Parts: sequence; C-alpha cells; structure tokens
Amino acid sequence: LLVIKAIVEYDGTDFSGFQRQPNRRTVQGELERSLESIFREPVKVIGSGRTDAGVHARGQAISFTAPEQFPADKICLALNSELPIDIRVQSSETVGDDFHARYSAKSRTYIYVVLNREAPSALLARYVWHLRNPLDLSEMRRAADGLVGIRDFASFGMPDKPGASTIREIKSIRIAQRKSAVFFAVRGNAFLRGMVRAIVGTLVEVGTGRRNPDDMSEILAAGSRDAVKVIAPSRGLYLTSVEY
Amino acid sequence: LLVIKAIVEYDGTDFSGFQRQPNRRTVQGELERSLESIFREPVKVIGSGRTDAGVHARGQAISFTAPEQFPADKICLALNSELPIDIRVQSSETVGDDFHARYSAKSRTYIYVVLNREAPSALLARYVWHLRNPLDLSEMRRAADGLVGIRDFASFGMPDKPGASTIREIKSIRIAQRKSAVFFAVRGNAFLRGMVRAIVGTLVEVGTGRRNPDDMSEILAAGSRDAVKVIAPSRGLYLTSVEY
Repeated sequence: LLVIKAIVEYDGTDFSGFQRQPNRRTVQGELERSLESIFREPVKVIGSGRTDAGVHARGQAISFTAPEQFPADKICLALNSELPIDIRVQSSETVGDDFHARYSAKSRTYIYVVLNREAPSALLARYVWHLRNPLDLSEMRRAADGLVGIRDFASFGMPDKPGASTIREIKSIRIAQRKSAVFFAVRGNAFLRGMVRAIVGTLVEVGTGRRNPDDMSEILAAGSRDAVKVIAPSRGLYLTSVEY
Repeated sequence: LLVIKAIVEYDGTDFSGFQRQPNRRTVQGELERSLESIFREPVKVIGSGRTDAGVHARGQAISFTAPEQFPADKICLALNSELPIDIRVQSSETVGDDFHARYSAKSRTYIYVVLNREAPSALLARYVWHLRNPLDLSEMRRAADGLVGIRDFASFGMPDKPGASTIREIKSIRIAQRKSAVFFAVRGNAFLRGMVRAIVGTLVEVGTGRRNPDDMSEILAAGSRDAVKVIAPSRGLYLTSVEY
C-alpha cells in the first residue's frame, strides 16, 4: 500500500462540513465515495482537520492509502473526473508511511474575507461576509495582538471531544485591506470548532467600535462561550493551507 | 412618474438569461416581480441588453418608471430586500424622461475570464472557463485586431429578430493576464446573441495554435455560423458596464 497526500479545494456552500455524517453531503463522504469507485475497495480519508458546514477550502490536506498497482501520478486526474464540481484536487503525491494528514500537521492557516462597502455583491454572496460599516484596521490589529500566543481559547470554540483541552497556539493574525475587501489571515497549531469565526466576529465588533481592543484578555479569561457575542458566518472562511 | 436608472449585478448561474420567459427563472422576471411588490403595481423593466443563460453581470443597466410618491433614494435598499441573493442592485438614480436603458446606451463592455493552468478550481467553477493548454497572448491579440471595427458579425452571432442587421462595431478588444487568469475585455456598440462567446472561443483556438491569427477575415467573410467552431461557455462571461 502507498500513502498518498493530496491538496483539495472545495466550495463549502453545499456541504454539511468536511466530516462524514450519515445522510448528509460532506466533503469526506464525497472523497471516500470517489476513491472507492477508483480503487474498487473501501478507502478511509484523513483530513488535516474538520471544516464546519459552509466553510470553504483552498488548500485542505488529506491522506489515504492507495493500492500499490495504481499509478500515483494518475490519482489527481482520476479523482477530479469522479468528484462533483465543487471539490477539485489540486495535487497529489506519494509520501512516507508515517504521514498522517491530521497528526503530522504543524499548523493551519485560515483566511476570512469581509466585503466592506455600501453595496452588496451578488457574485460574491457565497464567498464573503458583507458589512456596510467601515472597519478600523488598526483597532482590530491591536485586539488581534491580544489573542496571539499559547492560550486557553474555551471562550472562542469547542473541542471535538467534550472535556478535551481548549488550549491552542495562535502563531499570527494578519489583517489587510485591498480595495473593499478586508482579509483576516489566522495561523495556529490547531483550532477549536468555530474558533476562527468567533475571533473574526469579535474583531469586527472592535473594528466597528462596539468593543474595546483591550477586551480580549477578559474574553479569554471568561472561559465561556457566552463571552463571545458575534460569530462570523461560515461563507467568508477559507482553510488556505496546512503546514507540515 | 419618475424614470429610474439602476445598476444591477447578478450571478447568472441559476438564471435562464436576462429576458423574461414564461415558467423560467430570469433576471428581468425577478426584477419585475420585486418592483411590483414594492410599488404595488405592474412594472416593466428595460435592460441595456439581454444576457444569455448562465452569463453574469457586474454592471447591467436597467430602467423603469416609479410612482412619484416613492422616494427614489430608497429604491436601491427596498429592491435588495425583495430580490433573491443572486441579484443585487448596486445603485439607483432618477434620470430624464427620455432615458431608455437599451436605446440610450452608446456601448457595452463584457469581460471574459479564463483560468489558464493545470489545476481546476472548485471555488471558481461557476465563474471561469478552465483551460489547461497555455494561451499565447500575442497571437490572440493579433487575431483580435482583425475583429475591431464596424463589420458584419453574422458568423459570430444571431440578431434578436431573424433577418435583422448583423452589423456591429467592436470598439476594442483588450487581452490581459494576471497570474493564471486571462481576461478578454470586449467593448462594442452592441452585440449579437452569443457574439462575445464566439469571439472568445475563436481567440482561444488561436491562442492554443489550432487556428491562425489571420483566419479572422475569412471567418468574417463567410457570414455563416458554421465558420466558428468553438463557443466559450457562458460561465466565464460578465457584462461589466454600459456606457451612456
């Protein structure tokens, strides 16, 4: 058996998230169904992490095992001809036997996109959070600095298993504007469920003057989901890369 | 009665084109339905031109009449709260009584987007034409020069009414590349049905070496739809602006 690593892009709009669930359309479910149809045997797909319903990916990393006799360089094309149009494999390669898309990952980078202008966009409706009120980038950057580091993010999200650790490391939060788009790039070792969206929602409150940048330490200290008031909608969120 | 001009953006994917048709979801149909619900009377919407099924618009211009007592500056917000998410009005203004979105238009600009790289994109699947073979921009520009001017474009498209003139003026065709996206910007006084897609399809044949840039005069001279072999798919096409 060969271990294969692949980079996958998907439009999360019409999926109930990454993780396979019975009777739901999921990214993992579609990937496993397509691989089974190619290899003619059951395949278990491992993702670098679960993305929530509606969240997109430009660079989700997955791993799975393939039969030796299947040419590894053909997997990418074969998968794209089996997969639905809203999932596209960008590349695939043979990796070492010990590679595991989730456990081998050192960090993940998410980008959140806000369309910050008066007029809404029909063409971007599935892909951004439209906000009319101008965002103050320097205030948001000051608040973001208060979240970087190894911290207990219990206020910002839930662990996959109840009772598991809520300590994560945020390595960087960069906020940039190009024309009317505001981008939030958040890199961390791993993320709790809903964590990036809770962070962006809270930063947007700061950016519109409804919260003080210094509130972050209080929110972190609260250790309760009630401390976060705004969760950014999933349509603006992209898992952009996984670092190994 | 007031005459209102509005600029409309739409995602053409789920529409049977701009023009109202019975039992089909159309942009004009949705606009008229929404305006009727706001004004509580039948409204006739005039577009600068018809876009085909699946074609998008960033700046379609429309005109319609509104009751005097309705505040003109409220129309944009009122429309956006009535319209489906894949149509968004960008702006609206009161114009002179003689304004007609179609007959007053001096020119239209369309942009066609090709994703020109090996890997397909899930996030852009609805919005670009994906082509793996590298396009030769200078060859395509040479071919495009042969189409600019006042010419009979019968080979490239059909008039709205059978037997009507097929003479149009193309004012400019500009071709640019940014990263893996190739953009074709075509400005003309007016366009036949399918004309921009037939032009882009033919230029792509030139760009991949399957046609000679000097073929354009022969294709024009043929005066027959059979002379054009490739029609670019509608998902890459955007009506971007209408000039008055």
